[in-house]
Amino acid sequence: MRAVDIIRKKRDAAELSPEEIAFLIDGATHDTIPDYQLSAFLMAVLWRGMTRAELAALTEAMLHSGVVLDLSSLPAAKVDKHSTGGVGDKTSLILAPIVASPDSHGRRLYVPMISGRGLGHTGGTLDKLESIPGFDVNLSLDEFRRVLEKCGCALIGQTPEIAPADKKLYALRDVTATVESPYLICASIMSKKMAEGIDALILDVKTGDGAFMKKQPDAESLAELMVETGTRMGKKIVALITDMNQPLGRKIGNALEVEECIEILHGRGPADLRDLSLELSAWMFLLGGRSQSLAEGRQLASEMIASGRARDTFREIIRAQGGDPRVVDNPGLLPRARNETKIRAPRVGYVSAIRTEQTGVAGMLLGGGREKKEDAVDPAVGLVLEKKVGDRVESGDTLCVVHYNSGARLAEAVALLNKCFEIGPAAPPAAPLIRKIIGGEKFSSGEKF
Amino acid sequence: MRAVDIIRKKRDAAELSPEEIAFLIDGATHDTIPDYQLSAFLMAVLWRGMTRAELAALTEAMLHSGVVLDLSSLPAAKVDKHSTGGVGDKTSLILAPIVASPDSHGRRLYVPMISGRGLGHTGGTLDKLESIPGFDVNLSLDEFRRVLEKCGCALIGQTPEIAPADKKLYALRDVTATVESPYLICASIMSKKMAEGIDALILDVKTGDGAFMKKQPDAESLAELMVETGTRMGKKIVALITDMNQPLGRKIGNALEVEECIEILHGRGPADLRDLSLELSAWMFLLGGRSQSLAEGRQLASEMIASGRARDTFREIIRAQGGDPRVVDNPGLLPRARNETKIRAPRVGYVSAIRTEQTGVAGMLLGGGREKKEDAVDPAVGLVLEKKVGDRVESGDTLCVVHYNSGARLAEAVALLNKCFEIGPAAPPAAPLIRKIIGGEKFSSGEKF
Repeated sequence: MRAVDIIRKKRDAAELSPEEIAFLIDGATHDTIPDYQLSAFLMAVLWRGMTRAELAALTEAMLHSGVVLDLSSLPAAKVDKHSTGGVGDKTSLILAPIVASPDSHGRRLYVPMISGRGLGHTGGTLDKLESIPGFDVNLSLDEFRRVLEKCGCALIGQTPEIAPADKKLYALRDVTATVESPYLICASIMSKKMAEGIDALILDVKTGDGAFMKKQPDAESLAELMVETGTRMGKKIVALITDMNQPLGRKIGNALEVEECIEILHGRGPADLRDLSLELSAWMFLLGGRSQSLAEGRQLASEMIASGRARDTFREIIRAQGGDPRVVDNPGLLPRARNETKIRAPRVGYVSAIRTEQTGVAGMLLGGGREKKEDAVDPAVGLVLEKKVGDRVESGDTLCVVHYNSGARLAEAVALLNKCFEIGPAAPPAAPLIRKIIGGEKFSSGEKF
Repeated sequence: MRAVDIIRKKRDAAELSPEEIAFLIDGATHDTIPDYQLSAFLMAVLWRGMTRAELAALTEAMLHSGVVLDLSSLPAAKVDKHSTGGVGDKTSLILAPIVASPDSHGRRLYVPMISGRGLGHTGGTLDKLESIPGFDVNLSLDEFRRVLEKCGCALIGQTPEIAPADKKLYALRDVTATVESPYLICASIMSKKMAEGIDALILDVKTGDGAFMKKQPDAESLAELMVETGTRMGKKIVALITDMNQPLGRKIGNALEVEECIEILHGRGPADLRDLSLELSAWMFLLGGRSQSLAEGRQLASEMIASGRARDTFREIIRAQGGDPRVVDNPGLLPRARNETKIRAPRVGYVSAIRTEQTGVAGMLLGGGREKKEDAVDPAVGLVLEKKVGDRVESGDTLCVVHYNSGARLAEAVALLNKCFEIGPAAPPAAPLIRKIIGGEKFSSGEKF
């Protein structure tokens, strides 16, 4: 078998065999196929797309390029969530402790969560966790398993053993303008998630201005690809298409977002963030077999907050991963920016839209995110939105508070933020947070979503 | 400027600026853009194509990636021919001495010919020349110029100084299934030919079973691209679309083809090879200003053979490039294969078709061509066709004689050749050798082609 023939076949829109796909991925993993052939292949895939069979074969091959965790010895189902990313999207830190918490009979699910870092306008779970003093996301797979067994959940970054082919291909896609292929996105996400040894997965596919997929049909197509691929691989999988036309919650920035998650775990915090976290948790309970219906899952999730069990679990996870568990009761222990400045409304009216991607970019300019992968992040900086879409504002009202340390790119960030809030004469109609559910029917038949 | 942004732009079918194209080609030449970005770009070009302005910019950038010969000190026009390649296609060795020969008044044209090697089923001018004992195709550019000044013609291979960007990109295209883009083919050919410092170029674009472009419309599109690109670059350029549905002439194989060229220069040899060589020579005379019409050019070309001037020039070129000029009068000095075997007609009828590409493959299997670039070639082996399309055959007649040294792959070659000649009940209608002329009107207005 020769790489050039496989590239030619894809270029000519013929269907590749699983063996051909495995040959390429094996070559990528072991450096026996040069990068220049892989990148030509990636561009041909971006051009021609893939059949469902090809996509499943690609995902399988990438999954098996590294270690696949065997968590079958754990006494309950393993479930996880993946989000395609947005601004203020911090649900992982809320739903992981909720879903991993045992009930009064000791029944629980396991959440083996391997996450990523932020890039560009979007944040990343690992960066948020690292704003907790001492928290270590770089556990070995053995340590990961120990924390998981003990706490029901562990939260780490991708290790070199997990899907090394994805690491190689992702780096190439990034520099060859082949990131956007939904097939390559699907295989990348699903191979990593399947390597966690999970039984079920809930996908939060964001759409809107602050999402990777700006248009809902694109988000739906990607969601369908992922649901079908995961299902072919024998997993329970459902996707929620959710709104990202404004930041989720009110806080953007690593420590600020941890603080907001803690608010939710204390039964406070913004409604949109709470609702989405509970909904995602409910699906995880349902898919993991801990509830018989979505309604029961929602109920269970609420109880985990009300009873304080989720907070307990979060403290345990933090302690097990070397962090300071006191932040859960005293968020003042989180890093704090030295300075604040306010963005004010230029006139009376209603917030009619928030340029969400640009608020994320502003957060990045403050030092809270990365322009390039190598950049360091400042955990303390960020934004707190005082107004969201639909809110009434008077001229001079604070729209958002900017938390910053360095003034280096402050002016740039402020100039951007001054253009982020659109003020109109009337409140726009309220938009639903969950726009569509894909693959949910067979798990929750007849139930209203 | 970043390569990834240029790749993205081409991927999204936007038009690249000359500066963007120059940036990429400069990066390819000086290894400042990695191969994996270049190959993704090449695949995007294969996908999206190029505008005429982009193609001209690409060709210019590749041309200027290396040395462009300045032959302006020579006292006459410089003309060359390029063929897209076929089986038995040996016209260069005939037309170069014809066109470079001085007439009785000492008037001449110059033919600075930089050629390639054979690959796959097609032969290459350099391999044919090297079958002449002592002939050196690896002259430096200084030596090239000296031979050219002295003999009116020099015949060498691509030097490292000529279009190094093409060398880099060609190697990448070969292993990334991006050879077939007509835009990349055009830029590759034209950048190398323009680097010869020529004033005019005749293109022999082959079409048919033994050609790179099997279908005539594809050949015509490529020819139009090349004619337009060359014209934009200020050169006189015409393309002939010629038939490659059977081998040209009767002999295939390096020394055998040199022998057949010598036959033509002696006023003998097969009509199709003579006719095409004279026609191409006539166009070179016309474009180079040595004749006022195509008819006059044909006349001049015939005279160069009849007078023996072309043979004299060929002897001079061979001598100047270190070869044994006696081969022109004694082809027995060329290498000869030790063994012969015959392919015979299985039944009575007419040769209705010859699977031309496969005859070229058979020649390669005998050792006369290359499967891979690194392969050595045996100059002596090859085929002599006793019958061509339209010929009447009796059962048992010799269709072709196989000249071989090693028996290693003889059986394979013979099995192939036994399937190459189709015998039908009647002779097919004669097909014209020259199917179409592109760009010729403005040089030969009103004249019948």
